[in-house]
Formats: sequence, C-alpha cells, structure tokens
Amino acid sequence: MSKEKRQMSLGAMLFYPAGEHIASWRHPQAEADKLMDFEYYKRFIQTAERGKFDLFFYADEVYLWDRFESGISHANTIRPEPFTLLSALSVVTEHIGLAATISTTYNEPYHIARKLATLDYLSKGRAAWNIVTSQADEEARNFGKEKHMDHSERYERAKEFIDVTQGLWDSWEDDALLFDKESGYFADINKLHNLDYKGKHFSVRGPLNVSRPPQGYPVLIQAGASDAGKELAAAKAEVVFGPGGPIENAISLYEDLKGRMAKYGRERDELKILPAVSAVVGRTEAEAQEKLAIIEGLAPVRLGLDLLSHFLGRDISDLPLDEPLPFIPEIEGFNQSKSALERLRQMVTEEKLTVRELARRFTNRKSVVGTPEQIADYLEEWFVKGAADGFNLVFPHLPGCLDDFVDLVVPELQRRGLFRTEYTGNTLREHFQLQRPASRFVNGRS
Amino acid sequence: MSKEKRQMSLGAMLFYPAGEHIASWRHPQAEADKLMDFEYYKRFIQTAERGKFDLFFYADEVYLWDRFESGISHANTIRPEPFTLLSALSVVTEHIGLAATISTTYNEPYHIARKLATLDYLSKGRAAWNIVTSQADEEARNFGKEKHMDHSERYERAKEFIDVTQGLWDSWEDDALLFDKESGYFADINKLHNLDYKGKHFSVRGPLNVSRPPQGYPVLIQAGASDAGKELAAAKAEVVFGPGGPIENAISLYEDLKGRMAKYGRERDELKILPAVSAVVGRTEAEAQEKLAIIEGLAPVRLGLDLLSHFLGRDISDLPLDEPLPFIPEIEGFNQSKSALERLRQMVTEEKLTVRELARRFTNRKSVVGTPEQIADYLEEWFVKGAADGFNLVFPHLPGCLDDFVDLVVPELQRRGLFRTEYTGNTLREHFQLQRPASRFVNGRS
Repeated sequence: MSKEKRQMSLGAMLFYPAGEHIASWRHPQAEADKLMDFEYYKRFIQTAERGKFDLFFYADEVYLWDRFESGISHANTIRPEPFTLLSALSVVTEHIGLAATISTTYNEPYHIARKLATLDYLSKGRAAWNIVTSQADEEARNFGKEKHMDHSERYERAKEFIDVTQGLWDSWEDDALLFDKESGYFADINKLHNLDYKGKHFSVRGPLNVSRPPQGYPVLIQAGASDAGKELAAAKAEVVFGPGGPIENAISLYEDLKGRMAKYGRERDELKILPAVSAVVGRTEAEAQEKLAIIEGLAPVRLGLDLLSHFLGRDISDLPLDEPLPFIPEIEGFNQSKSALERLRQMVTEEKLTVRELARRFTNRKSVVGTPEQIADYLEEWFVKGAADGFNLVFPHLPGCLDDFVDLVVPELQRRGLFRTEYTGNTLREHFQLQRPASRFVNGRS
Repeated sequence: MSKEKRQMSLGAMLFYPAGEHIASWRHPQAEADKLMDFEYYKRFIQTAERGKFDLFFYADEVYLWDRFESGISHANTIRPEPFTLLSALSVVTEHIGLAATISTTYNEPYHIARKLATLDYLSKGRAAWNIVTSQADEEARNFGKEKHMDHSERYERAKEFIDVTQGLWDSWEDDALLFDKESGYFADINKLHNLDYKGKHFSVRGPLNVSRPPQGYPVLIQAGASDAGKELAAAKAEVVFGPGGPIENAISLYEDLKGRMAKYGRERDELKILPAVSAVVGRTEAEAQEKLAIIEGLAPVRLGLDLLSHFLGRDISDLPLDEPLPFIPEIEGFNQSKSALERLRQMVTEEKLTVRELARRFTNRKSVVGTPEQIADYLEEWFVKGAADGFNLVFPHLPGCLDDFVDLVVPELQRRGLFRTEYTGNTLREHFQLQRPASRFVNGRS
C-alpha cells in the first residue's frame, strides 16, 4: 500500500442495459434496439475505462419480470448473460475490472468456479464475482421450484457455495504446473488437491480443471445488507456494494461492516465499501435539473405501481394515487431484501409519501443532481466522513450519464487528488490494493 | 440452396488445448505454458478462419481426469471453460462458427439457453451447441452425485433439455420487441410466451430474458452413436460429429442417420454429418511419416494403459504388454459410450491387438498421413461416396497440424472445387446452408 493520499474506487454499474432507470430505453439518446449488440457494451466499457474506473459492475437476474403486464409492455426486459458479455468485453479493454453477478441459489459451484477462473485468465486478472441470492418466485420457477428459498437458507447456501468455489480455485497450487517436455511431467501430483467437500447444500469432489486464477481468487463482491448479508460480507467479501441513502445510514453501515471483520481475522482495509450513487450532471445546475426532468418522465405511473405491488406482495394499483399508503408494510413473513423493506417503511412512516410518490420512487432512484463540482463535493464528503471507500455509479440513462460523469466529474475528482489519473496496476486486486490470497495448501500441505 | 457443385463443411476441433493427442503439450512446437492464454486460442481460431472453416468446435468435460496418477503427471489436464472462451473469440473473428460443448447432465436449461442466445447475439449469428451427456463418475462427483446417470436416463434428460431450451428461445417472437419510445411500448405482450414446461427432469416456466437469437436457434450438434444417440440426432441435430473409422462404417452410419429423419418430418439435407479426421500432412510422404513418429512418441505407455483401465473399469496395468488382451470387454452393464466399446471389441476380436498396441490406440488416434494430395483424395472419397457431408478436423499437435492443413490441404480442396474459397454467408446457418427455424408460435399463436 502506498503512503500517498487515499483515493476512492469507482465502479460503473449496469442493470437495465439502457440505463439504471427501468424505462431508460425511452430516453431520446437511448439506443433501445442495440441492447443485445456487442458494440453497445463495448462503447460503455471503453468509456468507463477512459474514465479510469476500477470496475464494470454488471448486475443480473435470471428471469423476466412479467408478473404485471406493464413489466412486459414498458420495462426493459432483455439483457445479455453476464459471463458471455464480460468475456467478450475483456478483449476490448486492458485495465478495467469485470464483475459478473451470479446467484448462488440456482447455480453449481463447479461451473461458476470454472467460468470465473477462465474469465480471470482471459482478462489477465480482472475478474470479480458479485455474489447474490435469488429472491423472486419467477426465478425459482425457471429452475424447477415453485417458490424462492427462505432468506436464511439462501444465505447458508451462499456461504457453502463460496467455500466450495474458493476450495476449487485452490485445487492447483500456484507452481503446480511444470510443463516439462523433457521429463514428460505436465504437473506435480503433490501440488494438486481434491476438495472432497460434503455440506448440506453441496457435495463437490474437485479438483478444478482450470489452474489457480491469476488473482488467486477473483475479487468477491457482495451486497446483502440484512444481518446474514453483513456477516457474509464481513467474513468473505472484498467489495460491498452499499445501498446509498442518507449519509448517516451509510456511515453506520460502514462502521458496522468493518467492525464485524476482526472476528474473522480480517483487517478493515481488506473490504472496500462502495455505495450506489446515481448522478445526473450538468454544466450548470439548471442543465442538470433539465436532464433529471426528462429522466423522471420516462416511466408510466402504472409501471411504478406494479413494481410496488410486486415488492409488497399485494396489489395496490386500485388505491387513491394522491393519498398516503393506508398500511405499513409488515416485516413478519417478508422474504425479499429486508433492507429494502426497511427503506420503504421509512418512506411510509417518516416521509409519509403518497402512493403516487412511492410508485415514482420505485421507478426513479434518488439521484445526486448538479454541477461537476457539486457532485464531487457530495462524493468527497461521503469519502472523507467514513461513509464510503468509493462508489458504484449507476447511470439513469445511457450513454449520456456515463459520458457526463467521465468527461465532467472524473477530472474534478482527479484535480482534488481523490481519484487516479492513470491506472498504476494491471489486475483488479491491484486497482483495489487488495492482497492476492494465498492457497490454503501452501502452508501445512494437506 | 445453390445449384452449384456440392461443397464440404469443415470444423476445426479442440479438446486438449495443445492438440488432440493427450500429450501434445510435449511436442517441440507446443506452447504448453500458454494453455490458459487468450492469445493462444486467438491464433488458433484466426488460422481456422483464414482456412475458411465453417466452425470452431470446442470439446469439453467438466472434471479433471485424475483416476490414475499418470493422468495428472503426464496428461494435459487444464482447459478454459467453453462459453467464456468462445465469447471472447467472437470478438476477434467475423465468420467462423463457435460451437460450445455443454452437457445436459449437470446443467440447467435456462442458463444454457440464455448463454447460447447471448453468444449468438454477440457473434451475430455464429453460435452452435454441441450437445453431450456426461459419462464419468468423476464428473458426477463434482455435482453432488456419486455415480453418473444411467445411459437411457441421460438421453431422456438430454431430450427434455433440448425441448426446454428451444422453447425458451421461442419465448419472444422475432418481431415482439417494438422499442417504441413515443408510445412507451418496449414490447408487444401478445408476442411473448411462457413455456410452462413440466417434465420428468425439468420444470421451467420461462420466458427467457433474452430475445429470440439471430439464428432462431443456435445450430445443434450431436455426437452420440448409440441407438438413443442416433434417434436424438435424427430428431434434433443439425450437425453430427461422427466417429471416423473405416469408410464402410461411416457410410452405414450416414445412411442410418439420414434414414431415421423422415419419421421426424425432416429432410436429409437438414442434417450434416461430419466425421472426425485426424490429419498429419507433409510436403512429402516421408515428411508426413516423420511428423507422425514424433507425435506417436509423445505419450508414456503408462498413460495409455491407465486410459484403457479407466475405460474398461478394471486395472489392466499388470498384464503382459506384448500379448493380446486376455478377455473380451463385456457389453452387459457397460455405462459409457457404447459405440467406443464396439470399436474396442473389434480391436480385440478382429485386429487381435496386444495390450501395448491397445494402450497406444488409447493415446494415439488413428490419423490420415500423407501429402496434401493424399489427404484431399481421402476426404474427397469419403465425401463423394456418401460417408460425409464434411469433416471435423482434429489436430494431433498445434499449431503445426492446423497450419499445415490450412496452408496445404485447404488450397488443394479449393482447387478441386470441394471447398469454399470465400465465405458467402455471415451466420453459421448460412455456412451450413441450414434454414433458420421459425418460432413455434408464429403459426397458431398459443
């Protein structure tokens, strides 16, 4: 680690391919018919790399949101599969990290360990894994189940999944492969290890048929903000994708997460906390507000009502739009993101939002809106006050919001010495100043 | 279809990354320490594309062959995961098809349908799927099972898997996506279809969150030569990767497969049969024989004995090397490739090979060896006598055998009018002159 001024890390996130807004595809600049084209993503990631971002963070779900007609009619429902996309993008980039969102709920650790290891090789040490659990019944029904798995069981399975995956990455010691043409020895048999894992959710013998990844393990990212999610993050994650929200909440989350690490024998620096930030930048405040107004007008109200109905598990589309929600959402029996429910309860009980306003919140993520200096002030405050080690940027529409951030905000952050002007490392671990983990077999060989 | 002279199709196959030979990595030209490097595969596929090959055929298994120490010590045990590799390679190629070998035994159809559809988009219509079933206990143990699935159950599952996958590719009709910014309609809800599949092995609701692939369905490849495999091929496959062997066998297999198609309502032309051919080419016969001798000397005898022991399910490493195998391998209870067992029984009963010779056959695939003219004569004979629609070339060592084939044999085939001099189509279906399948929902909308 250098003694120089601490700098922030930046991720460029994509979920809906046209931009973070569920109806970004309607934006005048949107290239709605290009969302399955390689060139579209190539432009996105090359812009992020021009902005010296640490990471391209590709979010994902393994279903199509069709519970309500509006989801099919109005929302952006299609997106490329993460590994296939990121692997292709590794070819047209040199430095930026590549984070694949992969659920531990409906996958097999052997396949995922192998794909991540391969991506790490092809990208020369730039792979990351955003570890998620699946929480939609629609997703369950694509994989032979009727309902999604219970919250605690999902996390238990996630933990096992990570253990198995790391074990498979350790199959080969770093110097196990000899390639000795003369003697005929391809590998040193003493440096290959079976995993022989037998747990509640997985039984996996190993070894992996890919050698140890360049980064040892690809960088592990996690986002769960429930208690189980926080414990998993403190034990295993190297990057946490935080929810954003008020700075006070972010500071407590930051302290909470870093405080849990010691009992797992980890230093605070071994985990980077990157809250989500949606930024709408204008050369003037007025320009920024104009941009915001366009974005907030994109989604039909019906889409927001249906998203809210989905989240609540009850149809609220017949309620009067301009009155408060006539009930407080129950925690008891709720089986999706607990932290998102907490935020919703706050909107209902403290902010006392109307149904229309709640619906709008469900389509329009709260953005930081302003000039480059104002956005930089905001980020700097979070960074120096201990709310963040960096940020995971989401872009309400594309390509505009990413271009603006790279062209206007990044230079301002660089002027302030808060962000790199050039990549100094090659691997994603080097960008994040994270150590390369040693194989479990190097000391005390099994 | 054109009325011009019928031309052959060519696939370039890779299983062991250093070449088809299990110890190709020992060859003086081999780049054994580059087998996880993107540049290595980029060179391979760009050479094949320079040779106007239809297809890069990437074979795969989801385990590491460690039943015997020799497998770890001497064999080439590591290889990139197919989707991750092929997707990256799509970026550095323009025409050649990209075939991923994916087992139906330990995968989920939703994931595979999505990855193949994404690969088809990113490559602009060049994806293919080599459909295999898994037949090694080691593989089973990486996925929570003790033993691999029974032959008939594997094929039953494979058939369901394909049905589900094709159903998911049909989720969206070709013109379902509207991208109408003005009206706010992203898609026409009437052109999106749930699958609601409930079978013995899979229950999958759908729809897929990727639109219909450019090719309708990626090209389906299959290799099973058992009766169940042949029926599956006749019903579903568009390319069959045949076993090679004597021409008489290949002609009967060709007729057998094409003869089974009518009952599934398919024309003979809708299936291309590409036997495996391993070619060792020299500018003179003597040079070719010299090259062969180097290749055949690469594998230690022990490796061949262990491969044979594995296949037989009993240890034969203590038998006298220069005497015939003292038993005839039993068909009863055998649960790997039935057709490979048939070929082995022929070697034992008819060719009366010694244990050493059998071991050598298990490391050295039979090659066609000779001048470019001799190789072209061989391929032409198979092609005109109804044994093949083309060939899946395997290369005993790399890069030499591929370079030789492209530089010496392809021009000879082109001179004879048997092979294209330029790509005339863009998609893999166009190379193979295969129709783009219509969605099941276009007539008689469900």
